[in-house]
Amino acid sequence: MSKPSTSVDVVRISTKGPGDVSGLLRLIETGQIAPETIVAILGKTEGNGGVNDFTREYAMAALCEALSQHLKLTPRAVEDKIALVMSGGTEGVLSPHLTVFTRTPAAQGANGAGGKRLSIGIAHTRDFLPEEIGRVIQIEETVAAVHAAMRDAGIDDASEVHFVQIKCPLLTSERIEAAAHRGRKTITTGAYASMAYSRGASALGVARALGEIDGAIEEERILKDWDLFSSVASCSAGIELMHNTVIVMGNSDFSLSPFVIGHAVMRDSIDLSSVIEALKSAGLGLADAQSPERLANIFAKAEASPDGCVRGFRHTMLDDSDVGSTRHARAAVGGLIGGLSGTGAVYVSGGAEHQGPPGGGPVAVIARV
Amino acid sequence: MSKPSTSVDVVRISTKGPGDVSGLLRLIETGQIAPETIVAILGKTEGNGGVNDFTREYAMAALCEALSQHLKLTPRAVEDKIALVMSGGTEGVLSPHLTVFTRTPAAQGANGAGGKRLSIGIAHTRDFLPEEIGRVIQIEETVAAVHAAMRDAGIDDASEVHFVQIKCPLLTSERIEAAAHRGRKTITTGAYASMAYSRGASALGVARALGEIDGAIEEERILKDWDLFSSVASCSAGIELMHNTVIVMGNSDFSLSPFVIGHAVMRDSIDLSSVIEALKSAGLGLADAQSPERLANIFAKAEASPDGCVRGFRHTMLDDSDVGSTRHARAAVGGLIGGLSGTGAVYVSGGAEHQGPPGGGPVAVIARV
Amino acid sequence: MSKPSTSVDVVRISTKGPGDVSGLLRLIETGQIAPETIVAILGKTEGNGGVNDFTREYAMAALCEALSQHLKLTPRAVEDKIALVMSGGTEGVLSPHLTVFTRTPAAQGANGAGGKRLSIGIAHTRDFLPEEIGRVIQIEETVAAVHAAMRDAGIDDASEVHFVQIKCPLLTSERIEAAAHRGRKTITTGAYASMAYSRGASALGVARALGEIDGAIEEERILKDWDLFSSVASCSAGIELMHNTVIVMGNSDFSLSPFVIGHAVMRDSIDLSSVIEALKSAGLGLADAQSPERLANIFAKAEASPDGCVRGFRHTMLDDSDVGSTRHARAAVGGLIGGLSGTGAVYVSGGAEHQGPPGGGPVAVIARV
Amino acid sequence: MSKPSTSVDVVRISTKGPGDVSGLLRLIETGQIAPETIVAILGKTEGNGGVNDFTREYAMAALCEALSQHLKLTPRAVEDKIALVMSGGTEGVLSPHLTVFTRTPAAQGANGAGGKRLSIGIAHTRDFLPEEIGRVIQIEETVAAVHAAMRDAGIDDASEVHFVQIKCPLLTSERIEAAAHRGRKTITTGAYASMAYSRGASALGVARALGEIDGAIEEERILKDWDLFSSVASCSAGIELMHNTVIVMGNSDFSLSPFVIGHAVMRDSIDLSSVIEALKSAGLGLADAQSPERLANIFAKAEASPDGCVRGFRHTMLDDSDVGSTRHARAAVGGLIGGLSGTGAVYVSGGAEHQGPPGGGPVAVIARV
Repeated sequence: MSKPSTSVDVVRISTKGPGDVSGLLRLIETGQIAPETIVAILGKTEGNGGVNDFTREYAMAALCEALSQHLKLTPRAVEDKIALVMSGGTEGVLSPHLTVFTRTPAAQGANGAGGKRLSIGIAHTRDFLPEEIGRVIQIEETVAAVHAAMRDAGIDDASEVHFVQIKCPLLTSERIEAAAHRGRKTITTGAYASMAYSRGASALGVARALGEIDGAIEEERILKDWDLFSSVASCSAGIELMHNTVIVMGNSDFSLSPFVIGHAVMRDSIDLSSVIEALKSAGLGLADAQSPERLANIFAKAEASPDGCVRGFRHTMLDDSDVGSTRHARAAVGGLIGGLSGTGAVYVSGGAEHQGPPGGGPVAVIARV
Repeated sequence: MSKPSTSVDVVRISTKGPGDVSGLLRLIETGQIAPETIVAILGKTEGNGGVNDFTREYAMAALCEALSQHLKLTPRAVEDKIALVMSGGTEGVLSPHLTVFTRTPAAQGANGAGGKRLSIGIAHTRDFLPEEIGRVIQIEETVAAVHAAMRDAGIDDASEVHFVQIKCPLLTSERIEAAAHRGRKTITTGAYASMAYSRGASALGVARALGEIDGAIEEERILKDWDLFSSVASCSAGIELMHNTVIVMGNSDFSLSPFVIGHAVMRDSIDLSSVIEALKSAGLGLADAQSPERLANIFAKAEASPDGCVRGFRHTMLDDSDVGSTRHARAAVGGLIGGLSGTGAVYVSGGAEHQGPPGGGPVAVIARV
Repeated sequence: MSKPSTSVDVVRISTKGPGDVSGLLRLIETGQIAPETIVAILGKTEGNGGVNDFTREYAMAALCEALSQHLKLTPRAVEDKIALVMSGGTEGVLSPHLTVFTRTPAAQGANGAGGKRLSIGIAHTRDFLPEEIGRVIQIEETVAAVHAAMRDAGIDDASEVHFVQIKCPLLTSERIEAAAHRGRKTITTGAYASMAYSRGASALGVARALGEIDGAIEEERILKDWDLFSSVASCSAGIELMHNTVIVMGNSDFSLSPFVIGHAVMRDSIDLSSVIEALKSAGLGLADAQSPERLANIFAKAEASPDGCVRGFRHTMLDDSDVGSTRHARAAVGGLIGGLSGTGAVYVSGGAEHQGPPGGGPVAVIARV
Repeated sequence: MSKPSTSVDVVRISTKGPGDVSGLLRLIETGQIAPETIVAILGKTEGNGGVNDFTREYAMAALCEALSQHLKLTPRAVEDKIALVMSGGTEGVLSPHLTVFTRTPAAQGANGAGGKRLSIGIAHTRDFLPEEIGRVIQIEETVAAVHAAMRDAGIDDASEVHFVQIKCPLLTSERIEAAAHRGRKTITTGAYASMAYSRGASALGVARALGEIDGAIEEERILKDWDLFSSVASCSAGIELMHNTVIVMGNSDFSLSPFVIGHAVMRDSIDLSSVIEALKSAGLGLADAQSPERLANIFAKAEASPDGCVRGFRHTMLDDSDVGSTRHARAAVGGLIGGLSGTGAVYVSGGAEHQGPPGGGPVAVIARV
């Protein structure tokens, strides 16, 4: 076998605020995390998850600053080396936290127990221009990045991919104006609306890359044709970047990780049975799910059903001019998943356009074997 | 047996807006609901559930107006005859709806199947002065009203009471000023804060009335001593009244209703097992709960844990200056209960001060036998 | 002269809540307002001014109910007879109130003092289908309605029109779905966004009707080409109607009113000098403006500048995912106009698409001569 | 004369986000600001201004990090050397910006033109315990710090003090719990409410220090007795510190600054004439105020009148459960001051408890002579 074996570890760390890196530093100082092995950090921060949620970039700045000392890199170089995805919004019982993924080479043949184990791979697209966001070019660049991340993860088979996390850019008034000054029209002039377009195009890129959708996708189907979706894509838009960062998670023969990953697709925001199915797919029964020794974390996407109903009953998330629908949806799905896992420190992210069926979303579970 | 037997029916009706009474009128016109048998209507309306949530009084005005024609009463007299409790806030998957309770005399001995069945009773306190809200006098008046409502329900034994819904007043800037002009100090000068005081004092009144707490309760323990609570009280504050309306629900030998009621107490916002226990106490397994034929409705109280944590993990509900903590809590608990019952048309109400343990709250289930 | 002379009176009434009609009823009972002479009521209600602002329809229901007794009409017929425009949102110092316009025939020749005086006229369009909102057909129907309202006001000359208030419909999830079920596409699938489209198309209708814009307006210029605007249009979208209600105000030789109206156009949200100019155009100096005897009311439109800047300085209204930009804009312009007029009981309405230049809006002043 | 002369310069810099220090760095790199002369930076950041407004600490972290390189100090030491006050909330037309104050020794006798000029002085209190916030001890420590800052500014006469900016701490759930675990009770258990207590006690400290109030102030008068206030205090609460930072601004014979400062007191949120008076007190007429060459900045405090009215008209700021009253008040006063000064880049800060009369607040103007 020419491919080197790797091991992937997953650590969940609570934070006291968006700038709090003390928990991570403590684990580094006590030797529990070797900073140079960190490949990705997925965080939930306590902003509004909307356009003006600066907790995401604040958390990233604090993490880069803190890790720069340990890695002997500039903060900017840390950001290039480690895939940092901060998802804003910890409504309801959701609890701010970081999930740190490390990857280390492992002695071959050590995987005596056999079976595929958790693997992770990273890639980036180039920076997008404001007018490219939410259009076909964002889909296409994402396809290439997903394939690169699969290679990085040592996963050939799309069916072994269980979660693809993407961080993607959004439009601000300033960026929209900048495009306009160059004579270019952005896909929307609404900043909040642009988050949906960026997430949607990115998710369609995942679906294309994994063969969930065949053939080209026309621009007019983005945020329109809800039959097109990926069952494993999870996209968060943020003000702090202009490219897509892609993190592929799956199970691989080359991994010696003590963890496995599985997933299911929630058909709506109250799809209890799919969450149970996702737990099962990672080897967890209902009782195991509440054990912090077994459950590493749950990753789910939530959104307000675009038809205004959940199983025939009207919801009011889309008509609320005071609280954005992504805040509503995260709170609700966080309540359900928090109830099943016995903790609010789960990764529930809002805005599931083309990520799962309309009103639903992917839910992935990482569990210790 | 001297006591007349009664039957209680429960109908859940979706609404299209706070002023929508078309669903109720249709059931009246088709003979499915006899308007003169209506004793109580509990509704969820889609306002913010806070001080300036006018959807509650709008819904009440619309209901009184609509029923006044059928009952040949003035709208004001309708309000005196029927216990109307509108709870604002349908965050997340929660769906605006009305639950209509009717009560009819039934032929004695008809209860052939035996066993206690759903019974309901109503009472009111006098109007409170602004300075009385949230103080001992509100507790005491509530005790008397709960006892009156138990008698009305034909329930002697406090252990047969499974849910006590109270609608109570709140303070506005205007009411606080009015008290000040008379030289009186209200318990708080914050309108939003007054909702908590009013709910808290009302719940302590229930606890006293049912023997859950012995002896007098000093004013300084209200909203301070969280060891004091009722396991069945559910209180909603609203701008549209100055008295407490009390609705007692329980099981009685004198009822021939096709429904029974049971309850449990959620210890925190993610207490899955207590919701399952409440379902069981009304005779429902997990699969039955998703059947609209079996589940009449679930009634639950939600609140942000006052110590800032849920099972050791920090929540951010109390520190969010954009979205009130009651909105967060309703959305989260609504997500969990919605997941278990397969519908968002459940009655989840915010602000559970002295209603269940801190951070938790009562959850009652009405099921068809 | 064949045209009958009329007199128009204007009364401003504070309200204690969206359902409060006590002030109006008192004036009717004391004979200060003859209910059959009421032609229009413009109100500011204390909702969020967004999609789910039910204070508008609640206020309208309360007004129709109250006036139905005095007018011996059904509530529905009151709504047909009187132009009721409730504008939601009293942010900052803005104070909820009603402005009641009455019109009575007056003896000819009584206008001895000479000069044009305040006149008012009303018209309606037909109900729109959801898919017609924000499109050319809404513009065209509005043109016809403005002309009808001018005739009703006895104003021939477009330059004598100083304010055209329109109440127009919005899209909800339900209405969007209804159109989709009929195979029709609405101009947007966002409820909040639809309010802007409806206001914009209505304002362009005013501009066309008054000759401010020549020739046809293509659909793709709506909410895109900000050079197109009316200097006197003021449009509010509300959930409670499906047609446009048009109120034209101007000065007419046929009016014997003790009031005159004037206007100016604010170029941006801080355009102090235009507000001063509007006061002057109605005969008021800075000192007079603070006198309730002289100033009947000020009517202004406010919006967040779409380019993200006010006089070169970045504003944050469009990027705030917690508070809608119309709330921001009303609060700011309300602060400026409130400062100049010495009261928050002024009519400042949000969302000035095609109503004044981008970021600005019309400001009209009604003053006692 | 034994006292050395100083010169104070004032520079206003727009920012593109809370973490944006590029404007400041450019001025340092081009030599327009000598970093070692910076004594204070007052900023407006675009958060919600509430408990969970992390834009304040993010901006401070970014400023400390950026200046640490130029000053050869650790970020922590920068924070000790320079008084950094970030005030959250740029509602309405308000525009995020920094005002940088520098102080340099000046040749004696250079003040040929004569007259007092702008002077600035800084001091800190010790860190407070959570249970000390909002109590008499915070008042007393502030008195001492104000006196120290006056000495630092070279101002002996309290009547020459025109603005005292204080940054003070707030309570979070965590801090309240920490006190409770030590058996201590904080003045309030509400995080948002604690901001008012901290601002109020700090303002009373200023009033005591400047002789605006004689004698001791009992704890029960804090946030109760609104007759007690300072005419020059401006206090902002923030999550990022536990002590009070005090900045005294006034005019001094020892300053050779090209600027002077003046102030007035707004009696309510629409007090146009007091803003005009403040401009005049710094030598500016209405036309001058709109000139960026003359106006350095305006500093004002805004609050919702606690009696629920502005000049007899009801406002709705205190009863809005969706948008905090400080957001409303900043937007409104920002609109008025923005209109007068022709720019939204003014320092309007929310929550004026004991800072000016109830519903009003101090307004200070710094102008170039």
